[in-house]
This record gives sequence, structure tokens and C-alpha cells, in this order.
Amino acid sequence: MDYLDLIKQLHIQNDSKIILLVLDGLGGLPATPKGRTALEAAHSPNLDALTARGICAMSTPVAPGVTPGSGPGHAALFGYDPIKHLIGRGVLEALGIGFDLQPNDVAARGNFCTLDENGLITDRRAGRIPTAIGEKMVEKLRTITLPGVEIFVEPVKEYRFVVVMRGEGLADGLTETDPQMVGKAPLPIKALRPQAEYTAKLFNRWMSKARQALAGEHPANGCNLRGLAQDPGLPKMDEIYGWKAGAIATYPMYRGIAKLVGMDVLPTGDSISSEVETLKKHWHEYDFFFFHVKKTDSYGEDGNFDGRVHIIEETDALLPEILSLKPDVILVTGDHSTPAKLKSHSWHELPVLLWADHIRADDVTTFGERACMHGGLGHRYHVELLPLAMGYAGRLAKFGA
Amino acid sequence: MDYLDLIKQLHIQNDSKIILLVLDGLGGLPATPKGRTALEAAHSPNLDALTARGICAMSTPVAPGVTPGSGPGHAALFGYDPIKHLIGRGVLEALGIGFDLQPNDVAARGNFCTLDENGLITDRRAGRIPTAIGEKMVEKLRTITLPGVEIFVEPVKEYRFVVVMRGEGLADGLTETDPQMVGKAPLPIKALRPQAEYTAKLFNRWMSKARQALAGEHPANGCNLRGLAQDPGLPKMDEIYGWKAGAIATYPMYRGIAKLVGMDVLPTGDSISSEVETLKKHWHEYDFFFFHVKKTDSYGEDGNFDGRVHIIEETDALLPEILSLKPDVILVTGDHSTPAKLKSHSWHELPVLLWADHIRADDVTTFGERACMHGGLGHRYHVELLPLAMGYAGRLAKFGA
Repeated sequence: MDYLDLIKQLHIQNDSKIILLVLDGLGGLPATPKGRTALEAAHSPNLDALTARGICAMSTPVAPGVTPGSGPGHAALFGYDPIKHLIGRGVLEALGIGFDLQPNDVAARGNFCTLDENGLITDRRAGRIPTAIGEKMVEKLRTITLPGVEIFVEPVKEYRFVVVMRGEGLADGLTETDPQMVGKAPLPIKALRPQAEYTAKLFNRWMSKARQALAGEHPANGCNLRGLAQDPGLPKMDEIYGWKAGAIATYPMYRGIAKLVGMDVLPTGDSISSEVETLKKHWHEYDFFFFHVKKTDSYGEDGNFDGRVHIIEETDALLPEILSLKPDVILVTGDHSTPAKLKSHSWHELPVLLWADHIRADDVTTFGERACMHGGLGHRYHVELLPLAMGYAGRLAKFGA
Repeated sequence: MDYLDLIKQLHIQNDSKIILLVLDGLGGLPATPKGRTALEAAHSPNLDALTARGICAMSTPVAPGVTPGSGPGHAALFGYDPIKHLIGRGVLEALGIGFDLQPNDVAARGNFCTLDENGLITDRRAGRIPTAIGEKMVEKLRTITLPGVEIFVEPVKEYRFVVVMRGEGLADGLTETDPQMVGKAPLPIKALRPQAEYTAKLFNRWMSKARQALAGEHPANGCNLRGLAQDPGLPKMDEIYGWKAGAIATYPMYRGIAKLVGMDVLPTGDSISSEVETLKKHWHEYDFFFFHVKKTDSYGEDGNFDGRVHIIEETDALLPEILSLKPDVILVTGDHSTPAKLKSHSWHELPVLLWADHIRADDVTTFGERACMHGGLGHRYHVELLPLAMGYAGRLAKFGA
């Protein structure tokens, strides 16, 4: 029996409300060795006041040294072992564009590429064609039909697109076509398990038709498919936690991941303040809220330290409105670190702030990476956070007599 | 290979003496947000002096957020994965009244209930009949006999009792009769594995005879059986740790759990000072002593903060006598938290104090929840504590070349 099974067995229901406030990519690094991180530099009196009344931790999303993608980072935050419950790239890509993925759909991330006269790849990204050209190429691919399945092709950005097959008998467990180097032809897709044979055949036929459809084009006269995958069938939150969960997120990918674990995705606007309005509007309908702030991550990816500071300050300014709803438990953290210094996700631990009624307040009085190293909860893993919140919410029965 | 298998493989014997001093339910909460816990409020100069020379930790009994019962709390303290090695409720109940449970006995917790004329439950606790009435009803149940098994029925308290069956071919893996709601009849017991079919049949026959035996009574004219279980067959301490272990505990349940893991249960009186006398008397006979102080938990359950303070101070005053025996390693902690504020067990971590010869003393100088958050051993799990003590006692051989 693993940890989630235990939680599933012990969960009880009550009237408590729990908020998981995720500032995406929250963990940062100081720009200079003696400098401050964005979170440390931000003027965040409300987060600091909550910290003074709460208990803190540093938390590892997946494993020490491992940099998580958005999928594993969120799966871990939601309590699912991110190594055991991997969300395929094709699925994340489809969710990322807001595609309404169905449980048995097989989704693949597509990359346009350039092929020479022998069908060998000369450019794996087709010269990074602009989005407008990518969209035109997608139109060509949309002409492809195959008996027994419905096929969706959707543009993403530049040379990237998504292909989804829908129909009876589809299964994942498939290899990719991308040989990961130039000078080779796209590889045939192979089934990694018997029940995926039929799906492999379909995708190989699609690849061959795609080559015909793109034959006259340049530079995008070919394509590769990666991360062919189905909805991983994660156990749903109501089953594990026994709660009704609502997701408030402005970006499609996070709305999609929330949907995969059975949350209701609540309509909201583009700003954090509109997300707060959504929270207020639906406050009485849900037990648990996943509240996602995206741009701490986006600015991190852009190397925009000040942008991160600004988003943290914007969130801080809205915190009193959130707290005025009187949640029983609030957790503030991120899915992973995205230091502006690195312009990418990173492996670093990130700070966690927990407030609830029956906590032992620790000595930490400001919410920041270095302050939280001394947090009273010590060093944790993301998968422990929601079960911990469950305990504080009185939502776990005593284990054993 | 799991952790205990490793310990089993590496253990060596020497003359060292180890004391595990368990203040049951030690972890607490401040009564007010800025206040102190019972342990923080207690005047405990001897524990503090030992803390100054020792190293501290905060420890999670089972898993973050999970509130342990006494069974899992102690199993974990004794080094047994409490999720893997669950001690059934019937077994704990039998041990709790000092019943001399044999390895193949099947024990069940019984609750008297009230049934209407259709056999449907109208009160799951039979109006919480006083203990004297419960005892009279137990006399009725003692008249029940079944071929091939010896049956014991023992009163516990109020509406609670214990039934134990002893004989050839018994097995656990059985459902309970309690439908957990009124308006339903007690459920038939089902076998969850083939070898328990015979036992299920016996208990169902017993239930039917019990109904006849209680038919004329009121309000206890029926009963339910819960937590039907056998001794879980935990590997014994001498096998795992290679030591001779003595248990000093005033309450039957803890004596019983100690017996399940192969400790000798030493005769002792009701007070902590009589437990210290027992420790002294048997000091040369054992390698490891489990020394259990019960009332920190009892007062916690009662919401009696001052009672907890008093028991901690009483234990503290006796600590010099314990230390005068010159143990090589002493661990002071609890099985779980029982904050007076909550009047129940809780999920919170609890403080651990380890003293031994070769420790690196940390900066903690007072034994308390918040002080131990900064302990040099960090945040631990209960199952790690005895192996750690083994290391300090020189009782674990080098692993690998």
C-alpha cells in the first residue's frame, strides 16, 4: 500500500476549505552571490505576515537534483508520485493548447522538419518556421483521413503542432519517429506492448500520408511525432482526497492537468485579480481550490527578474482578499523553481508556507528561500504537502487503533 | 531488501545498554498561538541538560498528515513499517485488557448495540450502558460454545468487550458486522481470503447464538464485532536487533504490543518511580529497555494541559536516576502527538532527544517542539530511530567492504 492508497483509505469529509496557491516557478536564485532572489526582493508584507503565523518548509518537487517539467511538478503538488504517474508529452502539449482531450485519445507532439531528396532530415525544426507558416502546414495535414479514427491536427507555435487520434481500440506505449539527429530518416513508430500494435500502424500510415501531403513544401516538407500518449488515468481527487476540487488557472496547460485529476476547471479571466474574483464566486461550491499564478514562471524563463518580483508583489497585494474568505488551510508554494538567472526550470527546492488553525508557528517571519531553509517543517517532498493539508483540515481519520 | 532486513543482517552484539523512553502522546500544541506547549511550559532541567549534551530531531510517526493510533505509533517506534505491519483492532483491544493472546487466536472488538423487533440497529452503543451492565451481558455471551474452538469473552468498558477464538485452523482476513449506521442489521462476516472461510463461519454462528443469548435484554439486545484479527506475526526484536529487550509499561496495551515484538514484559507498579525501580532491578538482564510513560497521552485526551506538564516534570525529576545507570544510548520521544488543545491524537511531528557517547551535540538546549525543529538530526521518521540508536551503540557492523 502506498501513501496515496493510505490517504484514500483514511479521508473523511467535513466543511473545511483548503487553498493551494501555486506561484509557478516560485523558487529563484540571487542574481549575484550576495544578492536576493525575486521572492526575497519582493515587497510582500501580506505573505510575510502569514509566514509569521504559519509554518514553513523547503520542498523538492520530484527528487534532489531533478528539474521537473510542468507535468511532474503539478502531479507532485497534487500528491501523485511524479515518477510513477508520468503525463506524456503529447498529452501535455494537447492540454497546453486547450484541446478537449478524451480519455482514450492518443496525442502526439509534432515537429515540422526539412527532409532532403532521400528523405533524410536536414533540419529537425524546419528552420523554425514562423507560426503563420506552421498553421498553413497544419491545414495540409488536416486533409489526411484514416478509416476507423477521427484525426485532429492543431497548430501550437512555430514548427510545433499536435496530432490527436480518437476512436475504438487505440492504446499508447509507442516509440517516437524523431531520430534526434540530422542525416537520418524519421523512424517508424513501434508498439511497446501488443495492444498498441493497431495504433502504431495507424500513426505510421498517417506519417506516410503526411509526407505526401507536405511533399511540395519548403522548408517544412516533413514532420516527426514525439511523446505519443494517452491520458494516464490518474486516480481522481474525489476518490483520493474525498473532496470536490476547483481549479483556477489562466493557462490551458494547468487547466488541462487539473482536469486530468478530476478538478472542475472554473472560468476565469487573464489577471490574478480576476482569478481572485473566480475564487470568491465559487467559494461555497468546492472543498479544495488549486489557484495557479503563471507569470512567475514565464518571467523566469525570460530571465526577467523584475517581472518575477512584480508578479509576487501583485499576488501579495491580493492575498488579504483571499484570506478574507477564511480558508481553513492555505498552502503557498510553486511547482518547481524557475530562476531568472537560469532562464529555465531548475532542480532547486522551493519554499512552502502552510497556515492552518492547529499549527506550531515556527520562527520564520519572511517568506523567502533562505528564510524557509529554517522552516519548522524541514525539508519535504511535494507529494507530502496535500496529505499534510488534509491532516490540518481534519480530513484524515486516525490510522489504526 | 528493506531497512529492517538490512538491520537484521548487520546487527552485532555488545555490552551496550539502550533506553527508549516514550512519553506517550508527547507532542503538543500551544493553547494560544503565541503560547507554549506542555513540554515547553514544563520545568524540566534534567531533560534540558541532556538536550544540551545531545542531538535532537522532529519525527513523523507514520506519514505527514496522518494521525496514528497507539498500534502504528509503537510499531513505528520499534522500527516496523506501520503501514506494512498493521496490528488489528481486535488484537489491540485484547492486549489492552491484558488478555494473554496466543499467536493463532482471532480476536474481535465487540460493541453491544440495541436492535428493534426486525433486528435493525437503533443504537450502535446500546445507550452507552455502564460497565457493570456490560459485564453482566458478557456473562450471557460466555454461555456460547462452538465445537472445535475455545471462546473467551471479556468485558472492556461500558458497551465494549472482546471475543477471542482459539483453536486449529483459524485465520484472519474477515469483514466486520458493524454497518456503521442505525436502521440496518448487523452484517454477516465474510472471509477476505479462502483460508478464513472456516473462521468466518464460526464467528457468524457465534453472532447468531449471541443474538439468542441477548434476546430478552434491554438495551443491549445485540452486538457487533469489529477488527477481527490475529497477532500480525511481527519479526521479533532479538531476530532484528539481536538484543534482549525488556518492556516497562504500566498499561496493558503497551505491555501487549511489546510482547508482540518479543520483549519480556517486566512486572512493575503504577507509578513512574516504580517503573524506574523496575528498570534498576532488571538493568543487568537486558540490552534494550522500552520505558513507557502513559499519562502524557491520557491527560492530552482529557484536554488537561497542566496534567501533561505535571507528568513531564515528574519524569524529568526521575531522569537523573535513569541516567545514573549509565545507559550507552538514550532516546526520549513519544509515539505520536496528543495535544490537550485537540483532546485527541494528532498528525503533528514530535520532538526526539538522542544522547550517546559519539554524538555531535547540536545547538538545541531545551527539549521542546519548537526547539527541536532546529535539531541536528533534522526531520525524521519513527522507524529510523532504533536503527540510529543501534549505530550509536556500536551494534551495527559495517555495510559492505
